[in-house]
Amino acid sequence: MSGIDNEGSTPSPTNTLVTALLTDMYQISMTYAHWKNDRADDESVFELFFRRNPFGGEYTIFAGLDECLKFMAHFKFTQSDVDYLKTIPSMKGCDDAFFDWLLQVDTSKVKVYAMRDGSVAFPRMPLLMVQGPLGIAQLLETTLLTLVNYPSLIATNASRMVLAATERREVSESLPAQCRQTPVCVEFGLRRAQGPDGGFSASKYAAMGGFVATSNVQAGKLLGLNVAGTHAHAFVQTYTGLEEVKGRTVTDNTEQGTGENVEILPKVLEYRHKLATDNPNFGTTNDGELAAFIAYAVAFPHNFLCLVDTYETLTSGLLNFVVVTLVLDDLGYVPKGIRLDSGDLAYLSLECAKCFASFAEKRPYFHNLSIVASNDINEDVLHALNKQDHAITVYGIGTNLVTCQAQPALGCVYKLVEVEGRPRMKLSQEIEKVLIPGRKKPYRLVGRDGRPIMDLLTGYDESEPQTNVRILCRHAFIERKRAAVTPSRVEALHVLVFDHGKVVPDANRNLDQARVAAAEELQRLRPDVRRYFNPTPYKIAVTDSLFHFLHELWQSETPVPELS
Amino acid sequence: MSGIDNEGSTPSPTNTLVTALLTDMYQISMTYAHWKNDRADDESVFELFFRRNPFGGEYTIFAGLDECLKFMAHFKFTQSDVDYLKTIPSMKGCDDAFFDWLLQVDTSKVKVYAMRDGSVAFPRMPLLMVQGPLGIAQLLETTLLTLVNYPSLIATNASRMVLAATERREVSESLPAQCRQTPVCVEFGLRRAQGPDGGFSASKYAAMGGFVATSNVQAGKLLGLNVAGTHAHAFVQTYTGLEEVKGRTVTDNTEQGTGENVEILPKVLEYRHKLATDNPNFGTTNDGELAAFIAYAVAFPHNFLCLVDTYETLTSGLLNFVVVTLVLDDLGYVPKGIRLDSGDLAYLSLECAKCFASFAEKRPYFHNLSIVASNDINEDVLHALNKQDHAITVYGIGTNLVTCQAQPALGCVYKLVEVEGRPRMKLSQEIEKVLIPGRKKPYRLVGRDGRPIMDLLTGYDESEPQTNVRILCRHAFIERKRAAVTPSRVEALHVLVFDHGKVVPDANRNLDQARVAAAEELQRLRPDVRRYFNPTPYKIAVTDSLFHFLHELWQSETPVPELS
Repeated sequence: MSGIDNEGSTPSPTNTLVTALLTDMYQISMTYAHWKNDRADDESVFELFFRRNPFGGEYTIFAGLDECLKFMAHFKFTQSDVDYLKTIPSMKGCDDAFFDWLLQVDTSKVKVYAMRDGSVAFPRMPLLMVQGPLGIAQLLETTLLTLVNYPSLIATNASRMVLAATERREVSESLPAQCRQTPVCVEFGLRRAQGPDGGFSASKYAAMGGFVATSNVQAGKLLGLNVAGTHAHAFVQTYTGLEEVKGRTVTDNTEQGTGENVEILPKVLEYRHKLATDNPNFGTTNDGELAAFIAYAVAFPHNFLCLVDTYETLTSGLLNFVVVTLVLDDLGYVPKGIRLDSGDLAYLSLECAKCFASFAEKRPYFHNLSIVASNDINEDVLHALNKQDHAITVYGIGTNLVTCQAQPALGCVYKLVEVEGRPRMKLSQEIEKVLIPGRKKPYRLVGRDGRPIMDLLTGYDESEPQTNVRILCRHAFIERKRAAVTPSRVEALHVLVFDHGKVVPDANRNLDQARVAAAEELQRLRPDVRRYFNPTPYKIAVTDSLFHFLHELWQSETPVPELS
Repeated sequence: MSGIDNEGSTPSPTNTLVTALLTDMYQISMTYAHWKNDRADDESVFELFFRRNPFGGEYTIFAGLDECLKFMAHFKFTQSDVDYLKTIPSMKGCDDAFFDWLLQVDTSKVKVYAMRDGSVAFPRMPLLMVQGPLGIAQLLETTLLTLVNYPSLIATNASRMVLAATERREVSESLPAQCRQTPVCVEFGLRRAQGPDGGFSASKYAAMGGFVATSNVQAGKLLGLNVAGTHAHAFVQTYTGLEEVKGRTVTDNTEQGTGENVEILPKVLEYRHKLATDNPNFGTTNDGELAAFIAYAVAFPHNFLCLVDTYETLTSGLLNFVVVTLVLDDLGYVPKGIRLDSGDLAYLSLECAKCFASFAEKRPYFHNLSIVASNDINEDVLHALNKQDHAITVYGIGTNLVTCQAQPALGCVYKLVEVEGRPRMKLSQEIEKVLIPGRKKPYRLVGRDGRPIMDLLTGYDESEPQTNVRILCRHAFIERKRAAVTPSRVEALHVLVFDHGKVVPDANRNLDQARVAAAEELQRLRPDVRRYFNPTPYKIAVTDSLFHFLHELWQSETPVPELS
């Protein structure tokens, strides 16, 4: 994979809609109010984080930083933007000087520390920390959330699907070869995404989560992803009879061959007739479908993969595929496989693989044929398929990947934690929504076995946790929950990724690096944390010093209720 | 609302990703196979339709046609696209002449008949009918689906939320004025959408579904939508004490006033002190919050609307709002209202409205204050709120609108129904998936009461159903289901929207027209069809002649099973 990532000079955001105006109106109102009250230049710190892992899991893949950085590097209000803002009724009466100020706003005073794309992340650990003038850092909120929420959700969804698809299963030796392959996942979601950009993001971040290809040609071009796709039912339907492929030829590709064009229909009919002796179904397959497969073989002799369920999978599509396959093999081509898009995918894939196995003794390539399955697959279906025998080698996943049906929004938040060096907090009756105020630094403490033990937040000015030194780690809210950890390795989770209005070169990962990192970080997690059924929550903690700081602050800011 | 719609010369698609390459790989493969088999120029007809209404409802608002038309008008493969396609491994061995052909492909031979944006639509009725060369019409599939699926889903979701929000309720005369207002809906979803374009589409099509404003400033600028938004919790948190707003002034705006700048804090404190005599809570509200409201009043005296739940809604936020409000009123401004973003919205809104009512006798504007509610609202919540007393006048809806949590994909399909004048069909064991083959025309039959009775498909060459003439209408699949209808009006649902490579001027509706049409068409439906609880399915039918045509075709193409 190559990429359009943030190496070297900063490219523009992929989407032309990503400008300073891609924001919620209240950011403009608040910024005006800050400006009007002489606070726009106050030094502020915001943290972007989520409160709960999606999909009932215990981890999240962080994604979207590259587009955030491009957005920030190009952050500017145009004259036309400002002219428009002046026309908004609620801005009536605002000082003209504000609009002049807005025109010169940029991100040259903004610093961003962040986890890198592809990082495995946990609740409440800041994904990004944005530091800069209050009036400007506030303006970035909505866009940053928009650019992180969906990418992280889809990368996580994809990674969960890949984990499910590749889960080890017990496979009896007597089953066909396809049953022993480790399936891969391919993204087919463009038509069900939230428009073109949703589709593009889905392709990109599914790749980060471990999908090996996409159907989206544009994503292939712009991101260097593998693209995949053969034909649909519509292609099969365009043919009704064998006379439509009379005279169609394929070049003889055998080593001993003459390279001449060979008419394919007579050879197909010969195999059909021969095989019908043992299995009469070969003689009664749908002719239109057979014609379509021949036409497809004529076009793609090197890449012959057919959708076999337009009429009847086992008594028509599969058999039509086999006869054309035999002819292609005779002509020196290696056919690729079949796709199933309906019915009981476990049963059908197994029956197809058994049929392939019956030919494989004489023609070993039958062991290697792909069986692509692509009908409404989601994480639950993958786990259900793993509980039975199946021979699916490729999952094509669309709707449930891109819509994240199981949880369609991640719900990251962007919270002010400090202004002019003073911690800020929002009290809430829901403990989950209580903010951990003040600037903090996130670390990952790794044990002797190389697996992360927990993530730790320290105050910004605390010294870094030391390798092989015992650390008292505390639950941020529950006093009695404490643990002593002596990490074998300490990893700082934040890097400076944006400074002086520019993306810090090579600080973030490109798409391919992020994909590799996500897979590695995930494998490093304790298996009980990443498992599907009742995963163990990964612990996040604060230092003892941060714990005391927080609790003193809460005490001081929470009024004592007067009971009467 | 103005718009960037398809009036006059055709503007480019809103999103730069919307090009010929925004498609699934299999469209390219199929097109190559058609081209290779000399079928790319065969005259074909595709229909784009959905099989089931979303959200358990019985209607759908069709949307997205404007972007489809822009896409088609600009449909072209660039040299760079073609160069890229040549590098795709599965295209290895494809004839070079194909790529030359692809470079000259355009939509000049494509005709599109469609329902107009904002049409109320039903399952199986074609939303678009695309007629043109097989190789080209096939290439349009994915992009058209991408451009219709999400817009139609979100327009429908929005319209259902608006129906729910505006449902008539029993309101006792003794309740505050806000309880008798018909609430409106505002879209707040940008940060939870599938990226920038998902957010933009959400704003646009929520407007089509009846939302009155959006928080998305860019959508406001590009589409001429109303934008809304005041401030967030973060704004309140930036203030900790009253000393921070010492000296802040608001201009005296009263008729008799001098126009001088008046310091606001002393006047606020005076009211606070006075009101604390009756209600001691006025004296113990959060000072930081009060300071923030004062700062906000200084910035927006004309548009004073405060988020009141940062600390305690009823004992702090509401009371702080009231005292600042009284000062603004004294200075000649009309305050706007409050926003609630947590807690029991029915209870809190009612308590706030009661508080307002207690001031309204002397200050009537209190009757008109808005109460905006914005915490995780969805269609179910709206119906639940309607079952109790509440005083919400504006719903701010984000996540559940844009993600369509209740059903995150519409699932439109694009099916080949005819090639070279011959009907095409896909048989399926699921009756829901059986295709109605052949080119058809959709009509709406309207009764004497002005309400639609049913939608009717005729064969393409059948004569148009006549007003006041009895028509035998049949269920497409179930023989015994028949009804005779004598319509008082017959409405052709399709118009020619694209021809000779160009958008037909004024054939489609612009956004504002579509919004009005959707609301009118919806109101015209029988109430039991559009209701939330157990809606009555709206009937769709075929003519007797089409029925016989279909069934003869099915008979002829379905093999008789051999039982043994």
